[in-house]
Amino acid sequence: MFAASADNIVTGSKLLMELLGADPSARAEIAERMRAAEHAGDDATHAIFHQLNSSFITPFDREDIYSLASSLDDIMDFMEEAVDLVVLYQVEELPKGVEQQIEVLARAAELTAEAMPHLRTMDNLTEYWIEVNRLENQADQIHRKLLAHLFNGKYDAIEVLKLKQIVDVLEEAADAFEHVANTVETIAVKES
Amino acid sequence: MFAASADNIVTGSKLLMELLGADPSARAEIAERMRAAEHAGDDATHAIFHQLNSSFITPFDREDIYSLASSLDDIMDFMEEAVDLVVLYQVEELPKGVEQQIEVLARAAELTAEAMPHLRTMDNLTEYWIEVNRLENQADQIHRKLLAHLFNGKYDAIEVLKLKQIVDVLEEAADAFEHVANTVETIAVKES
Amino acid sequence: MFAASADNIVTGSKLLMELLGADPSARAEIAERMRAAEHAGDDATHAIFHQLNSSFITPFDREDIYSLASSLDDIMDFMEEAVDLVVLYQVEELPKGVEQQIEVLARAAELTAEAMPHLRTMDNLTEYWIEVNRLENQADQIHRKLLAHLFNGKYDAIEVLKLKQIVDVLEEAADAFEHVANTVETIAVKES
Repeated sequence: MFAASADNIVTGSKLLMELLGADPSARAEIAERMRAAEHAGDDATHAIFHQLNSSFITPFDREDIYSLASSLDDIMDFMEEAVDLVVLYQVEELPKGVEQQIEVLARAAELTAEAMPHLRTMDNLTEYWIEVNRLENQADQIHRKLLAHLFNGKYDAIEVLKLKQIVDVLEEAADAFEHVANTVETIAVKES
Repeated sequence: MFAASADNIVTGSKLLMELLGADPSARAEIAERMRAAEHAGDDATHAIFHQLNSSFITPFDREDIYSLASSLDDIMDFMEEAVDLVVLYQVEELPKGVEQQIEVLARAAELTAEAMPHLRTMDNLTEYWIEVNRLENQADQIHRKLLAHLFNGKYDAIEVLKLKQIVDVLEEAADAFEHVANTVETIAVKES
Repeated sequence: MFAASADNIVTGSKLLMELLGADPSARAEIAERMRAAEHAGDDATHAIFHQLNSSFITPFDREDIYSLASSLDDIMDFMEEAVDLVVLYQVEELPKGVEQQIEVLARAAELTAEAMPHLRTMDNLTEYWIEVNRLENQADQIHRKLLAHLFNGKYDAIEVLKLKQIVDVLEEAADAFEHVANTVETIAVKES
């Protein structure tokens, strides 16, 4: 079930990529598909919680499963929110640097989707979480530079507020990938 | 004890309603009563934590009780913060849409106060959490529309910053109601 | 290991103090030392998690240890972020009130570092957490007044955005000290 949730996140990250290159008139339709992906993610999360709450015996510690499912759900929510805000605020052009944020998210999504099936056997997970932690640090650097650019740039204050909210939400998505990786590390060390 | 905490939240949501219709000169006194309600909430939360930490046997899982008490406390804190900010920032007029946010909070507060006594028997809780989840989605839509209105409206940037912080805090209160409902669902499924 | 983590936070709070009096040209070097302190903190946190995950028996509840280590780590992260933002945004002058925020953080850091060794025997901790909770309330008041000052003052909107982010991060550091104190209280009551 975690694999389904992570595959869904890969879909979301591809929609973010698509948004970057899209004509403003095509954005509403991308937002629509993103909303569908987010609903699919909600269903997957709910299924995990239901299974978890009605099981006496669980493969890993209950709290780790809960944390993993919640963080995967958060990632999807943040990605959906970012797309929705771009449409809602009628942003003309995303500032340079957002495409770097989204590339990091896409890479983290791929790594996460590849890692989930390994939870069964617990092998080959070390590289995954080291790499996701590295990506989160990179996302953090990109995010801070983006804010400095917004604040010291040619934008007016209202535009800064709109764009800041979008780049902040993308940064929250990167943080949530790190939460997923930290939980996987916790599970793996307990099992070892 | 959860019922006391939830009744207190109903008091808070009524004070928010009162704030809406109040003359700016009457706001300080409403903020005063809100602060008193928040202190009463703090006492209730502390009593729950103390009871919890000094008990060997608890009616539900320890972590669920902790989560329920914390989220109820968060709701009260966010409502108090909203009122305090309106006074502190000397807001002249709240933007259209805030009254919808507050109506959703008032409805969620009522439902939560009605649900708490049912934790004893665990019956009639399904409708409660479905409805609170629905209200949170509604609050989310109202919040995003409010932000779009603030950003595309007639407000200057500093005014946008003040009003944004207030509507964001009210949105956090709505999120906290959903956390309460999710915890109640978790408890109910475990007991079933 | 918690003591090492808390001593590191005292180092961080002294660097914040140093930043206050520093010439803008000296800030980059302070940020460098802050980054080193944050890396040392990361190592301490990682060592605690590794120890925790590979131990069958732990001195306190696993979730309390995890929560304590995470909150100590958060404090360091927020302090490092504050210094980095001052440099990155090329802030000319910090608004009056920030020095009060930093004094509260420095006092909370000292109290926390003094309290950590008492986790062994659990004595003399009551005063610590009462005092840190009092400091957090004080920090909250200072923070709200700072925001009102920023919003009603002589600053332009972009400057407000920069300064708001810095004072918000310092407030998050104060909140994280309270999380540490609440976890220590939880541990102490369970042990009693």
